[in-house]
Amino acid sequence: MTNAACWVPIPKNSDFSIHNIPFGIFSDSNATKRIGIAIGNHILDLAAAAKVGVFDAISVDKGVFTSEFLNPFIELGKATTSAIRRTVQQELTKEDSVLRKEESVLISKDNATLHLPVFIRDYTDFYSSIEHATNVGTMFRDPDKALLPNWKHLPVGYHGRASSIVVSGHDVHRPMGQTMPPDAEQPVYGPSKRVDFELEMGFIIGRQTTLGETLNTTKAEDYIFGKVLLNDWSARDVQKWEYVPLGPFLAKSFASHISPWVVTMEALEPFRVAGPTQDPKVLPYLEYTGQKNYDINLEVALQPEGAEKTVVCKSNFKYMYWNMVQQLTHHTMNGCNINVGDMMASGTISGKSEDSYGSMLELAWAGSKPVQLNDGSERKFIEDNDTVIMRGFCEKDGVRVGFGEVKAKILPAK
Amino acid sequence: MTNAACWVPIPKNSDFSIHNIPFGIFSDSNATKRIGIAIGNHILDLAAAAKVGVFDAISVDKGVFTSEFLNPFIELGKATTSAIRRTVQQELTKEDSVLRKEESVLISKDNATLHLPVFIRDYTDFYSSIEHATNVGTMFRDPDKALLPNWKHLPVGYHGRASSIVVSGHDVHRPMGQTMPPDAEQPVYGPSKRVDFELEMGFIIGRQTTLGETLNTTKAEDYIFGKVLLNDWSARDVQKWEYVPLGPFLAKSFASHISPWVVTMEALEPFRVAGPTQDPKVLPYLEYTGQKNYDINLEVALQPEGAEKTVVCKSNFKYMYWNMVQQLTHHTMNGCNINVGDMMASGTISGKSEDSYGSMLELAWAGSKPVQLNDGSERKFIEDNDTVIMRGFCEKDGVRVGFGEVKAKILPAK
Repeated sequence: MTNAACWVPIPKNSDFSIHNIPFGIFSDSNATKRIGIAIGNHILDLAAAAKVGVFDAISVDKGVFTSEFLNPFIELGKATTSAIRRTVQQELTKEDSVLRKEESVLISKDNATLHLPVFIRDYTDFYSSIEHATNVGTMFRDPDKALLPNWKHLPVGYHGRASSIVVSGHDVHRPMGQTMPPDAEQPVYGPSKRVDFELEMGFIIGRQTTLGETLNTTKAEDYIFGKVLLNDWSARDVQKWEYVPLGPFLAKSFASHISPWVVTMEALEPFRVAGPTQDPKVLPYLEYTGQKNYDINLEVALQPEGAEKTVVCKSNFKYMYWNMVQQLTHHTMNGCNINVGDMMASGTISGKSEDSYGSMLELAWAGSKPVQLNDGSERKFIEDNDTVIMRGFCEKDGVRVGFGEVKAKILPAK
Repeated sequence: MTNAACWVPIPKNSDFSIHNIPFGIFSDSNATKRIGIAIGNHILDLAAAAKVGVFDAISVDKGVFTSEFLNPFIELGKATTSAIRRTVQQELTKEDSVLRKEESVLISKDNATLHLPVFIRDYTDFYSSIEHATNVGTMFRDPDKALLPNWKHLPVGYHGRASSIVVSGHDVHRPMGQTMPPDAEQPVYGPSKRVDFELEMGFIIGRQTTLGETLNTTKAEDYIFGKVLLNDWSARDVQKWEYVPLGPFLAKSFASHISPWVVTMEALEPFRVAGPTQDPKVLPYLEYTGQKNYDINLEVALQPEGAEKTVVCKSNFKYMYWNMVQQLTHHTMNGCNINVGDMMASGTISGKSEDSYGSMLELAWAGSKPVQLNDGSERKFIEDNDTVIMRGFCEKDGVRVGFGEVKAKILPAK
């Protein structure tokens, strides 16, 4: 299976190669939301493909392809969704595929609108990059005790707001909030002055558990459907004032953006790598075997209004200290039930070098080292009308599997 | 309108008087989940009532009454749901009501199963009882600085887990968890040793906002549909080890129980009272006029297996420092969107006296003053097979409006 064998043209370096086949929700001149896969610069309409019979050998109700979210599709289970994905790959590389004769099945991505791919039932955000947690601890606490005592024993996480997760391209206004300015005696209400991005990835739950059920690190992998890019926007000044003792709240819930295509774990399989050594040893319920990290190149670009963009961060998902299998196992160990469509996020993904930090807070070191942009301006945090663009891709032995981008502009406060 | 005029018998002191008419989801020998109202010891089947035409004067699709959650019903809007509630009151007090001739519309509550009334989209838990926050601060921090600096300036809250909210009667197992025992050097994994209840009330959102929209304290009231009792179970030892810096996580998400009947804000209208004086003055966006607290008597009973129950706490919702209107306004001030079916909870509702504290943590003062039970045993926290029963009701001028109960047993860890 090669890109060259695919009868849909695939530009060089396209994230959406024949090896990827990610799932998403789109609409076009036909406003009905439906399921598509991305291939090169096109979208294959799975509802239309089903109509011409390509999935007839798979036991699946065709109605599922016109769902407005991927959830009912994911609920079919990995055996079915994998078979559909493989069938798409076969059809797209088959000279005489019936799909080739049906013009309506292939839509140029320029003619389509992409929507939030998943109804996110519950959203959990972890804090699993040791580089990020160390940076934050160094800035705000003691550099010699940057990590809190629990950090290396469990994947620290918190429940996030699901309603305000939106898809790439949905611009949002700078949030209003209550903050305590430095040296002030009374808090003030006004636009946040420290809006920041957080470079994260989310994984989408593919299989539900019931209340009281627990997973282990072997079983957990089967409950993960795929991954997306996530910009977990943060209002740092709001966060600082509100977060003790119950954690981040309004500092996070004004918006979180995800990329529109859910890349399956099958597509990511070739990019597994070993994670960092965990020292001290974790408790037995968190032990795992095998390679559970993934080599996914990540970058963040910042684009002021009307100016060119500047790449401000290059990081990689492989740096994660706690892997997804450990996060999910930990999440269910108290019996908390998970549902198809839940999203669990990594936390900010920082690397070891200063240009790999996944937030402005770290890149500009709490405002002490402004980030230089290509247009000559500098940034401590995100300014009005700045657009933040995150991209991610895997590449190995000539095979590229990417996530496209998650992009959003911060409009001035209302 | 009096109970005496109601042709369904209403026992003295019933929570479900003619003045109440709360909405819930039930099933009986007919397993289809549908909407009912509670009246005395009976349930009026609204789907059956609609079929015989009692709601014909109200523009409503009858299919809404066979929803498995109240959400589509609540989405009709208060004008419609209030009209339906008033019509039910009229029919139940009309001698020649057509409902009287239809035996199938009235089900004895003994023959019915009550279900989770609402699909809870997002769940937020506040921390708005000054007595509770002061008790916790006194126990774990400095009694002279028990409240954290932000507490009197904003309603502190956090995002909770929605998936594990279940209805009264759904027994749950003691959660497993990671804890750091006192004086230990390494954390351990095992059943939580400090399972606790939290006496709370939740309010259900009745109207959605879009991302970026903010409410004010005048408008917010119109977005609240009704209220339920909530037992926000907490594993104190898990919480202590996990919660810094991102807040409570698995300590809370093993289960939260709500009462099955949603009592409308219309039914609670006669029980409005003024809230406590807020000093220092709150920021203008949190100022409000009118009476926004409610006089709701609350109690918690603890029942060991096979023994009689002991009332361990008598509190009242009127003590809340931050009211619902302030909580909801604050929640939307950053543009976070709310949806019909969201639940926002009060936080533990403690009163001023030692017998009014809303958790075992406070009642037994972190284990230092065990609570005596009627069967001669004592409790610092909840033991295996203990059942916790919370009740709530309003009473004034002979009118009683109650919530029934929320009840659940803690089974041994699996």
